[in-house]
Formats: sequence, structure tokens, C-alpha cells
Amino acid sequence: MPREEFRYRTEFRVRFGETDLQGVVFNANYLLYVDTAQMDYLRDIGVPYSLMRGQGYDIVIAEAHLQFKAPARFDEFIDTYARVPEIGNTSFRMAFELYERASGRLLASARTVYVIVQESTGEPIRVPAYLRRAVREFEGNGATEPE
Amino acid sequence: MPREEFRYRTEFRVRFGETDLQGVVFNANYLLYVDTAQMDYLRDIGVPYSLMRGQGYDIVIAEAHLQFKAPARFDEFIDTYARVPEIGNTSFRMAFELYERASGRLLASARTVYVIVQESTGEPIRVPAYLRRAVREFEGNGATEPE
Amino acid sequence: MPREEFRYRTEFRVRFGETDLQGVVFNANYLLYVDTAQMDYLRDIGVPYSLMRGQGYDIVIAEAHLQFKAPARFDEFIDTYARVPEIGNTSFRMAFELYERASGRLLASARTVYVIVQESTGEPIRVPAYLRRAVREFEGNGATEPE
Amino acid sequence: MPREEFRYRTEFRVRFGETDLQGVVFNANYLLYVDTAQMDYLRDIGVPYSLMRGQGYDIVIAEAHLQFKAPARFDEFIDTYARVPEIGNTSFRMAFELYERASGRLLASARTVYVIVQESTGEPIRVPAYLRRAVREFEGNGATEPE
Repeated sequence: MPREEFRYRTEFRVRFGETDLQGVVFNANYLLYVDTAQMDYLRDIGVPYSLMRGQGYDIVIAEAHLQFKAPARFDEFIDTYARVPEIGNTSFRMAFELYERASGRLLASARTVYVIVQESTGEPIRVPAYLRRAVREFEGNGATEPE
Repeated sequence: MPREEFRYRTEFRVRFGETDLQGVVFNANYLLYVDTAQMDYLRDIGVPYSLMRGQGYDIVIAEAHLQFKAPARFDEFIDTYARVPEIGNTSFRMAFELYERASGRLLASARTVYVIVQESTGEPIRVPAYLRRAVREFEGNGATEPE
Repeated sequence: MPREEFRYRTEFRVRFGETDLQGVVFNANYLLYVDTAQMDYLRDIGVPYSLMRGQGYDIVIAEAHLQFKAPARFDEFIDTYARVPEIGNTSFRMAFELYERASGRLLASARTVYVIVQESTGEPIRVPAYLRRAVREFEGNGATEPE
Repeated sequence: MPREEFRYRTEFRVRFGETDLQGVVFNANYLLYVDTAQMDYLRDIGVPYSLMRGQGYDIVIAEAHLQFKAPARFDEFIDTYARVPEIGNTSFRMAFELYERASGRLLASARTVYVIVQESTGEPIRVPAYLRRAVREFEGNGATEPE
């Protein structure tokens, strides 16, 4: 998907401590970036994690699929695009694309699934209406209703 | 796949610093465990990373697909099973299952793809014969020939 | 202090993901090792963190002083020695030395200060008697009374 | 030292993955912040790490002394002040103070020592004149001559 179609972007700058002996960003740090971008997205569309926790909800990752396309190096800027392609009954999906800013090269893409649970029990629970609404307002027609 | 069918196991003990504010192992650390288990596997079948680097090869992760099944907590032991289900021409696949030791619960499973590259150029190169042989000897009929 | 005088040793094996672009263990990971060694020490002398938390205590780091002596590389074993040179009224000190196993070279040393707090309030509280006793029994005359 | 006397500031926003089960930033991550701030400082005064490496120099941390004053929580902004109080013959010192932005509370302070080495040999080498000059110009009379 062309990155112009993403409505959300956040950024990282590669830290020295995020590289490994191959001289590039260590692979698990892409999942750290993705996780951070997810939290940035939720906060920036008006549903910060603290709000959800304050109402007894929690968010749990169920799945992550990463494709590594090109290495990133120390001090490079990583433009990270995020969107919610689908909201289900008790879960929602996200998609991410990470680009090195100066060269525009695609570094990695990721697709993830998150489940909303009741914090006290850990049991899946219906995605709260305000999260659903915030996503739909932000994404436009992009995010689907639960079937 | 039942874990009895894996021939390789390595272990982790959850460090305090690997947990997050949800009180469980932070999701990106599963990819750190998987990466560490891959390196353990290669070393223990007789093909340590240093050997490959010494001969001008490098290993690059191309894909990782993680499924998160249950949370792991501080100080728990994580038995991590690994195998190579397939070796292609310039790449090989690995599969991992991570279990909490005391309860036997499945924490996560992962499938990954690695590409062998020439270290100097980063270009994909045929999987070296000694890696192919070491995997076949270790896995038995498990690992397929390249088509 | 010669490492023979330490009564406690735990070990790490350098993970690929713990190195940085200099090809050696990233400096902040020494503090991760030290933190992990502290938790190992407490558990192994019979005072696991979960016990303290279960009784309403928490442990907070107040100070860490690290000296970096030599680099450690991927896959090396790090023998980590730990002791408690002093227990005060509401705090205790620890000292650590980290050696690469094969060469015996000193990698780093560290001194830390931890404060015992009431978990509910975060306020410093007298070191519980069972922790004091466990340390004295383990260290012999090594650990001092609070003045 | 009052933070008004620092001429350099960089910032972090606490990532979910940087917290631990105590619900606050894991202690080793302060050393990650300090390391990142050091690199930011050098780049922003005109001596990026890549420049030094390109000329055959490397920078090695010799010592780090951290004092932890108050916990930081997920999503908080950390204003990180840095300065170079002293440049020696083959080494230089840095001092850091980290404040939570909204409350202004001091989270941690750190003092570090870095040694300049020849990249090829790892041997200490005189601090390059352009680094010395860049620091003096930036810090004013703050940074001392080697004795």
C-alpha cells in the first residue's frame, strides 16, 4: 500500500543502543518501534492507553507479522506509518510501514492483531465504542465494522 | 506441532528488565528470544555465527511471524523449541515454540525466514553446503532440499 | 577485590541483540546484567522478589556506579560475581564484578545502592529482618549491621 | 547544578517497552537515555559519531555513575540536559540531568567518562582538536583544558 494512503505517521531516530554487531538496527527493535507507534497512534486519535486502563480495559497483542526489507543505520530517521484496517468484535488489526527518511527506502512492514481484554480477568471483551468511533473518524471508511 | 517433535531446545529465564508495566514479558522480547534461540541452534548443530562470518557469509532475517498465546512473568523459565523445517536455495525457515516450564503452557510460537548473504555485498548467496548438511544431519528428514 | 572472595556467581551468555555497532556488548546492557544478577542473588539466598512483594515491600535502585574495563563479544560467557558489602537501616549496597570466562579478563565492575520501600506508598522502610538475616548467613561477617 | 546552566537539552518520551513490572522506566534504560543523549550532543555541536569513525577514532565509555531520584512513567516526556564539564588528554567527562517535563521533577542524574581510542587498535589517543574546539565553543569557559 502506498504510504500516501496512511493518515498517521510517527517517527523514530535510530539510537546507538538499537544497533547490533551487523551495524544495523537489531531485528527485535522493529517490534519495539511498531509497539511504540501503536501507542502513539492510539494517543493521537484521542484514546490514550491510560484512558483505556482507567476504564478497566487492557490491550494485548495476539499476532505480529514483520517483513524486513532493508537495514537501518544509527542516527537515521525512521518515518513510521500506521493505520487500522479492521476493527472486529473484540480485536483490531493494524498495519505499519517503516521508511528511512533521507533515502525513502522501505525498511520494514508489519501487520499486527490486538485483543481488548478486561484488565481484571484478562478475558476478551467488546472493543469499547469510543475506540471504535475514534478509529472510524480518523481513518474514514478505512476501518470496517465487525461482522 | 507437538513439542516432542522438536529436536532442539534452549531456555531463557525471564529477567526483571524484560517485563513491562503490564507485569509480563514485553512483546518485542519474544523476538529477542527467537533471535537468541536461532543463534543457539546454529552454534549447537556446529555452525556458529562466527564461523559463517569468518567465511564471508552473513545471515539476515527476512520475515518473522509471531503468535502470542499466553503471558510470561518475571523469573519463569521459558523452554524454547526450534527447528528448521525447510532450507531453500539462498534462505532457510525456522519454527519456534516457547513454553513456560512449570505450567507447560504455550506462550508463543514463531516462524521466521533467514537469507544467507555475502557479507561484503549484502547480496543473497547459496546456503553454504556445511550449513545444509549440518541441518539435515540434525533434523533428519525434516529439512527439505531446495527445489 | 579478588573474585575468590565473592560467594555468589551467576552467568550470562552474550546475546546477539545485546551487541551494538561497535561489535561489543552495548554499555546499558551491563546495567541489565547487574540488575538481573541482583535478582538472582536475592532469589538464591532465599529471598525472591515475589516474596518481598507479597509482603508489601518493594526494592528501588538509588545509585549505580559502573566501571567499564574491557569489551565483551557475542556468545562469550560472562561470570558475574555479586555480594552485599553493607546493609543499612532502609537500604543495602551491592558490589559486582563481571569476567569473561574463557580469558578471565575483567569486563566491568559495579557498585549499587538499593532502598527498601513500602510498595503502597513508595516510602523507605526498615530492611525486613529475614532479608538482613539471609544476607548475613550467606555472606558471613561480610555484611555490616546498620549503625 | 541548576538546569538553567546546561546549554544542551534533548528529549525522550517514555516508551511502553521501556517500563518494567514496577510500572516505571526500567533502570538500565536511563543508561540508554544517557548514551543516546551523548550521541545527540556530539552530533548537535557538529561532531557526529560518523565523522569521528570516518577519521579512525572511536569513543568508549569508561565509567558511568547514575543517581536515581524519582520514577518516570509511560508516555512522560523526559527533558535530558547534558554538558561536558571537562576534557582531558585522551578522555572527556559528561554530566546529565533528566527531568520529567510536566512536573519538573528530577528523575535521575548521571556522570560519565569517555575515552577516545584509535578504532583500529583500541588504544587511547589524544582527543582530536576539532572535538575539543567544538566543545569549548559550545560550552564557553565550562570545559577545561587538559592539565
